[in-house]
Amino acid sequence: MRGVVYQGPRRVEVRADLPEPAVAGPRDAVVRVTCAAICGTDLHPYRGEIPGFGTGTVLGHEFVGVVEEAGPEVPFAAGQRVLASDVVACGRCAACARGWHYQCPHVSLFGYSNVVGQPLPGGQADYVRVPYADVVLCECPGGLADEQVLFAGDVLTTGYTAALHADVTPGDVVAVIGAGAVGLFAGLCAWLVGAAAVVVADGDERRRAAAEALSLTAVPPAELVPTVRRLSGGRGAAAVVEAVGSDAALACALEAAAPRATIAVAGAHHSHAMPFSTETAFARELTIRFVVGDPIRSREEVLSLVRGGRIDPTRVISHRLPLDRAAEGYRLFDERLATKVVLTP
Amino acid sequence: MRGVVYQGPRRVEVRADLPEPAVAGPRDAVVRVTCAAICGTDLHPYRGEIPGFGTGTVLGHEFVGVVEEAGPEVPFAAGQRVLASDVVACGRCAACARGWHYQCPHVSLFGYSNVVGQPLPGGQADYVRVPYADVVLCECPGGLADEQVLFAGDVLTTGYTAALHADVTPGDVVAVIGAGAVGLFAGLCAWLVGAAAVVVADGDERRRAAAEALSLTAVPPAELVPTVRRLSGGRGAAAVVEAVGSDAALACALEAAAPRATIAVAGAHHSHAMPFSTETAFARELTIRFVVGDPIRSREEVLSLVRGGRIDPTRVISHRLPLDRAAEGYRLFDERLATKVVLTP
Amino acid sequence: MRGVVYQGPRRVEVRADLPEPAVAGPRDAVVRVTCAAICGTDLHPYRGEIPGFGTGTVLGHEFVGVVEEAGPEVPFAAGQRVLASDVVACGRCAACARGWHYQCPHVSLFGYSNVVGQPLPGGQADYVRVPYADVVLCECPGGLADEQVLFAGDVLTTGYTAALHADVTPGDVVAVIGAGAVGLFAGLCAWLVGAAAVVVADGDERRRAAAEALSLTAVPPAELVPTVRRLSGGRGAAAVVEAVGSDAALACALEAAAPRATIAVAGAHHSHAMPFSTETAFARELTIRFVVGDPIRSREEVLSLVRGGRIDPTRVISHRLPLDRAAEGYRLFDERLATKVVLTP
Amino acid sequence: MRGVVYQGPRRVEVRADLPEPAVAGPRDAVVRVTCAAICGTDLHPYRGEIPGFGTGTVLGHEFVGVVEEAGPEVPFAAGQRVLASDVVACGRCAACARGWHYQCPHVSLFGYSNVVGQPLPGGQADYVRVPYADVVLCECPGGLADEQVLFAGDVLTTGYTAALHADVTPGDVVAVIGAGAVGLFAGLCAWLVGAAAVVVADGDERRRAAAEALSLTAVPPAELVPTVRRLSGGRGAAAVVEAVGSDAALACALEAAAPRATIAVAGAHHSHAMPFSTETAFARELTIRFVVGDPIRSREEVLSLVRGGRIDPTRVISHRLPLDRAAEGYRLFDERLATKVVLTP
Repeated sequence: MRGVVYQGPRRVEVRADLPEPAVAGPRDAVVRVTCAAICGTDLHPYRGEIPGFGTGTVLGHEFVGVVEEAGPEVPFAAGQRVLASDVVACGRCAACARGWHYQCPHVSLFGYSNVVGQPLPGGQADYVRVPYADVVLCECPGGLADEQVLFAGDVLTTGYTAALHADVTPGDVVAVIGAGAVGLFAGLCAWLVGAAAVVVADGDERRRAAAEALSLTAVPPAELVPTVRRLSGGRGAAAVVEAVGSDAALACALEAAAPRATIAVAGAHHSHAMPFSTETAFARELTIRFVVGDPIRSREEVLSLVRGGRIDPTRVISHRLPLDRAAEGYRLFDERLATKVVLTP
Repeated sequence: MRGVVYQGPRRVEVRADLPEPAVAGPRDAVVRVTCAAICGTDLHPYRGEIPGFGTGTVLGHEFVGVVEEAGPEVPFAAGQRVLASDVVACGRCAACARGWHYQCPHVSLFGYSNVVGQPLPGGQADYVRVPYADVVLCECPGGLADEQVLFAGDVLTTGYTAALHADVTPGDVVAVIGAGAVGLFAGLCAWLVGAAAVVVADGDERRRAAAEALSLTAVPPAELVPTVRRLSGGRGAAAVVEAVGSDAALACALEAAAPRATIAVAGAHHSHAMPFSTETAFARELTIRFVVGDPIRSREEVLSLVRGGRIDPTRVISHRLPLDRAAEGYRLFDERLATKVVLTP
Repeated sequence: MRGVVYQGPRRVEVRADLPEPAVAGPRDAVVRVTCAAICGTDLHPYRGEIPGFGTGTVLGHEFVGVVEEAGPEVPFAAGQRVLASDVVACGRCAACARGWHYQCPHVSLFGYSNVVGQPLPGGQADYVRVPYADVVLCECPGGLADEQVLFAGDVLTTGYTAALHADVTPGDVVAVIGAGAVGLFAGLCAWLVGAAAVVVADGDERRRAAAEALSLTAVPPAELVPTVRRLSGGRGAAAVVEAVGSDAALACALEAAAPRATIAVAGAHHSHAMPFSTETAFARELTIRFVVGDPIRSREEVLSLVRGGRIDPTRVISHRLPLDRAAEGYRLFDERLATKVVLTP
Repeated sequence: MRGVVYQGPRRVEVRADLPEPAVAGPRDAVVRVTCAAICGTDLHPYRGEIPGFGTGTVLGHEFVGVVEEAGPEVPFAAGQRVLASDVVACGRCAACARGWHYQCPHVSLFGYSNVVGQPLPGGQADYVRVPYADVVLCECPGGLADEQVLFAGDVLTTGYTAALHADVTPGDVVAVIGAGAVGLFAGLCAWLVGAAAVVVADGDERRRAAAEALSLTAVPPAELVPTVRRLSGGRGAAAVVEAVGSDAALACALEAAAPRATIAVAGAHHSHAMPFSTETAFARELTIRFVVGDPIRSREEVLSLVRGGRIDPTRVISHRLPLDRAAEGYRLFDERLATKVVLTP
């Protein structure tokens, strides 16, 4: 079968000679992928930022498809349309019982090689094996197209979770750092739960245009603080989402925060000694909450919003390409010429 | 001065010979009323439902105006535009410190005679005396017209509080019993905080039309349960607002509630022995929360939503009349020919 | 094998000719019972209060034991000591995913015949079959005796859940209606989360003595309101637990409640038209929350409290009897001569 | 009158020639101090750590006393026993209305010169002027001695607030960094709301002994992580309080935190670029909440706990000295020979 394979920094290749996966245990399913996306998280290995990332890894953790084969404990039949969670968890341990799937001792991520748990081939492929499929998969709601469902497997639930964890009170001015897909969805979700205004900061003009197209207010980072101050009568942002994952972005989030604000940090952070202003955090009595999106926990709510017409996830898609042109999709995304790339067989 | 005076069941009269109020203590203000509303709560005395309600009472507890005179402890100057809270509270006792203004030992309601605390002439008049004016009044935000601000003094904050206390999770199907002004605002606010669908039940066709005009789904009471079931995949309403205040309405709310739902009861209840199905409540593990709106606590959030364009309170207004035609306004409202009547000098 | 069998109102019999249960599916386990309890809920069928309750039912839903045999999907080995949840749920549906096990479409109760879901023989027996054993059972923590663990399968988690759902703020005066095992545990747990005083109301002198022995304040029902008023500076109880399940008990809970209080109703209610004072509930802005204990969700926390020495569940045990004398245990409990009866093989 | 005056690093002096304060506005009161404490926060200026701290400042922000004179808007009469909040706030602005007194634009601290708001002479004196006395003071509950009430004005409410903001779930293992008065009270309060175990880390042996005397588990910092791991079955502390205020203490708090933990930071932080491990915070999905104690908001709850016998604040007192020996008290405290020093006239 075909699959998008990591071959080294900025080198991905669609190979056609990969072995088809098979059901290996009673909770496994094999899914024929009908739609997959390239995620900002995929750019970290693509850019060579992850030491030891395995050459030969099949990439991709956002995908929907059709069940091809299922083990005896999987409550989905061949032919059913399903959505996968990017986070793979056992569903039966103490952490899963609390809904803390990312803290499951068996956690892994599709297509992410050595970073979180055991390596697991990803979904930018013709077929993919899904472990713990009774937990990781859910049925696609009838009446929704693949593209409407797809992002509930990662970026949409991440943005949603971040917006909720930022403790938005209706009427708040909300700041979002970063106008990538997670930032855009966080902004839309903050709006959805009652923000009076959402201001998205991004240094890239194209990305700001994407935010504006979604009726969010977009500004360059340097204008964030004055903008939220003006809109909030001088206070600052009562809720902040940091959707980049860099030291600079988190520092920017602190600056924008009003007294007593909550900052939800949804960007993946890897710093060992970020310079952090505890003085600002203490004087303003801030709460900083690090958030990993959890599709297993949140996809039902998120899909209900999509079904009810409250959110249209397809609006962040900038490019649709056949799987065979995945390398081009990676390049466009890496060069910030794309906001979100969707791949179909 | 003029004022709308209660003269007995279904008899209100605009009298022109009332004495002008004066500042009587350091925390008093006298406000020249520029806009007042008739509230559903005013219909209770109008219909003679409140034993002992004092003949001669000046009615009205929703009003905005201009400060005419203020005591030394009132931080508003003559000429400032202000909004009053219908709930009058001292702001300095232990209950007020917790934000529980309706539980203040000094609580009273404008124009409501003997029901809550001491009698206090109301705001359907040329002038009104406001006690504890430093707490009860707030400045009208610049750029907003009287009609946009007016309902933050009662029905809008009541609907808002009810929607928040119903614990709406984004994606929920929400049921609202009653399409009066409180029900409509509760429905709009439930939408504002992320409901996937809001279904309003009312037996009156005109009121259902008003709800539909606000993009809510409106049904006769008998269709409420099948409608919420259909929209929620069989579950029922995860959040319910009861905005009528009758035994039948509360029973209807219980019926519509999904397992684990919260029912916010915003209608004023006066039953001593309502027949209540504890079996349903127990089997479904329901929460029933009785809610009194509190403009002192919530008006800042609500006005922020109005200012941000998230909610347009003027859309519930069905009639605008000069103060001199107040009796006609009461009649229209009583006969359900009006949704909301606004009076101007 | 032996088992306690319901033979009709106030007639239970220990029969020795029951067939031993066997593993019937991959998620089944058979447990050899080492300790079981008689629960207040067992008195409802015993007293003939449940129409249609099946003659021949093996009773009992609080038990610990040792795994005798387990299906392939059950993560417990023969010989492991386990505690069962009284609530049996599948653990894999949407309700279970939210932690709402009592709302699972497959829900049932051990030994409770026709009331909740499918009939399921109970645990007052030598052996019991446990469906969904991967979800329903948990391992007994090392170092704790059977009696210390036993009640985490029902009455202790119910009392705990009720105390938590009553929204106790540290420093609150808490009222508990009913000094049965659930009421006693609710009182202990309210104390554990910071109540300044816990007042338990019960008409039975022996039960009040049991409450006093646990350092709770116990009063006859008529003295509840004056007592909580005196202790709270006139306000009433800021948090109330109703642990009886009768109309009178719930009415008593409303009376004792302070303004803005939460009443957690943990007693099983079956009324279709309880006379309910909505006037009191509205004037005081009360929250009434119907609560079913959920051992699957809460037993980890509860057992952690037992292990840490924060709570000693054995203190509610009044009688220990061999299984063969179960009929005597039922009689003592029914006549309120026992608070809690434990049966051992 | 007499007062403890800051004369430069490690130089305080009791002067007897200070002018007696007088009521200067309608909301002022003058209080005759009957009991005051030296607080850890006082050591910052004492040690010369606060640039520009004014020589001549009368120190002290924890005190109780008797009203000597009161302005017309102060609801306390001469002779009433009162407790002051260390945080001084107007009680009437938008921040105060939300209960965010530390964010009040008029905020100041007794005896703290130039750091927070306007300088305000402190309470380690014979008399002290209290601005906004209607908000800042509360009556001492009858039946409680000065020493039992005193700490509700700062360290006890700070420890209490920290424990509550750390989101302790009953059964949790809680870690506290620092066994000063705030840490000790935070530990006691964590216990009070249901912790299964509280582990306090401090490098000073005397302080660990003080913690042990309060039935808390005390360890040197290096043993904190292994101890909480052992007690929690390997997980770490589900709730952490950082009660020191240094970069090292916060780093230690991060280390001890279990996945999904909340860290309440109650120590005053002044770092502009603390090296912060965002990797740990992200991988464990931590919440870090910076907390300033607020006696105005919390003293009622705290005093209710003291009155109910749930907490005995006098147990942290190590030394009682007459005001004239205040310099000795500062020295003992600075040299860590005292835990808490109380001064009486």
